[in-house]
Amino acid sequence: VDSLARAAGPEAITAIGNVGDDLEVLGVHVSPDLDTVLYTLAELLDEERGWGVRDETYNALGMARELGGASWFTLGDRDIGLHLVRTSWLREGLPLSEATLRLAEALDVRVRLLPATDQPLRTKIQTKDGELDFQEWFVARAHRDEVTGIRYDGAEAARAAPGVLEAIEAAELVVIAPSNPFVSIAVPGIRETLAAKRVSAVSPLVGEKAFRGPLAEMMASLGHEPSPAGIAALYGDLLDVFVVAPGDQGPVGAVECEIDMVAPDRRAEVGRKLLEALL
Amino acid sequence: VDSLARAAGPEAITAIGNVGDDLEVLGVHVSPDLDTVLYTLAELLDEERGWGVRDETYNALGMARELGGASWFTLGDRDIGLHLVRTSWLREGLPLSEATLRLAEALDVRVRLLPATDQPLRTKIQTKDGELDFQEWFVARAHRDEVTGIRYDGAEAARAAPGVLEAIEAAELVVIAPSNPFVSIAVPGIRETLAAKRVSAVSPLVGEKAFRGPLAEMMASLGHEPSPAGIAALYGDLLDVFVVAPGDQGPVGAVECEIDMVAPDRRAEVGRKLLEALL
Repeated sequence: VDSLARAAGPEAITAIGNVGDDLEVLGVHVSPDLDTVLYTLAELLDEERGWGVRDETYNALGMARELGGASWFTLGDRDIGLHLVRTSWLREGLPLSEATLRLAEALDVRVRLLPATDQPLRTKIQTKDGELDFQEWFVARAHRDEVTGIRYDGAEAARAAPGVLEAIEAAELVVIAPSNPFVSIAVPGIRETLAAKRVSAVSPLVGEKAFRGPLAEMMASLGHEPSPAGIAALYGDLLDVFVVAPGDQGPVGAVECEIDMVAPDRRAEVGRKLLEALL
Repeated sequence: VDSLARAAGPEAITAIGNVGDDLEVLGVHVSPDLDTVLYTLAELLDEERGWGVRDETYNALGMARELGGASWFTLGDRDIGLHLVRTSWLREGLPLSEATLRLAEALDVRVRLLPATDQPLRTKIQTKDGELDFQEWFVARAHRDEVTGIRYDGAEAARAAPGVLEAIEAAELVVIAPSNPFVSIAVPGIRETLAAKRVSAVSPLVGEKAFRGPLAEMMASLGHEPSPAGIAALYGDLLDVFVVAPGDQGPVGAVECEIDMVAPDRRAEVGRKLLEALL
């Protein structure tokens, strides 16, 4: 998102974020995916870790831990400040999409950032030891349990958040950012709307290695080939253009482009090359 | 409380705290009175300010302010850690008394600290501009509105928290700490239980000046004499012994004792003198 925003100008972009791994911890609502996009675009991200706010302190979490509160999910102090504000807005009845737009505005983020849905859709990870919340599997248990299945809790009842389908319909270019195809598009209506568009996706794997996280292992344990071609197969006929790293083998017609995650000062360049390749 | 705990040993003390100025801010439950007692006894208090945790950071609140969240009530990061834990316990259905005992235990506080009630009893301050929540009047508007009346919202429905009446009944000595008599004893049952005991109170005024806060002004605006004698009159026949600062004029039978708030290392001494005078 940041690469495209730097290349095309932030006002030209609507970013639609996954909420499947949202969670409530210490009584606050956390949207890890939306927050990472928000912090990136607001230039607050801890770029080294790839999540959270840079130069963070952890004093609230430290106290919570001392008192026996949940501390398995790392929340920095500034991060908690954001969660407190969003959670109080949600409790007042604001939909997540509205709360997200407000946060983005307050942080002077000019990309239009929307959650895929305002309903509580949650990705559940099935393992031999039973079904786990996504973050419970990913963070608390350090994704060491083999994944035997995935379930999208609440997906049937979920509807695309206001503006999501309209943004897809109006888009000159649809790009699925490097992401886990298993946790991406479960909201009814979004897939159908995408099907009518020319959709491009950027491979989340370079060779057999994910940019981040245990995607390759998850693919293997679910019986898919952990490769860019395997990813493209998972998206199936939704996909019109697939972007892989130089030298990687994609499906027929794959476009090669530098897609490594890079430092902020080189993102505009990566975005421009991507736009050149796709437009 | 700390003086008596240091003099008599913490295990000998049950402290019963006011909840009338509790509030919900940024979605967390804050109990300013209980927290100040807790932080004092846990030796975490910012002694200079008289509230909050010492060596605090304010990064969460800073972010909340940037995002347009409520920031009028100063909450430090470690303080927020405590509020998050307590609030999540309360949301799980734990009564405030149980949550308070748990926090005290986690902080190795051996005084038994209880809220007067588990029900939501709130002190409302009446002014010419209408009725305000206590902290709205005290903090947000810097107690500049003249007080024309006080109302205890929820007092009729409130019951003493488990252990409170029993602790009063079993006490060898009952001491009302220096406090605002207008916001002190509104829970049905507590006053009646106190009436059967020999009750001592420590004056919250030294001369015409309160240890802290706008008590003298509040007394004057409500038509009471802002003096130790005026305080004693407000407690009325509830009171058997009244403790005033050396040289101050109390009611008949007042005991003089050094009652100034002092640094931690001198509190045991003040407590011992108080116990000598009262037992």
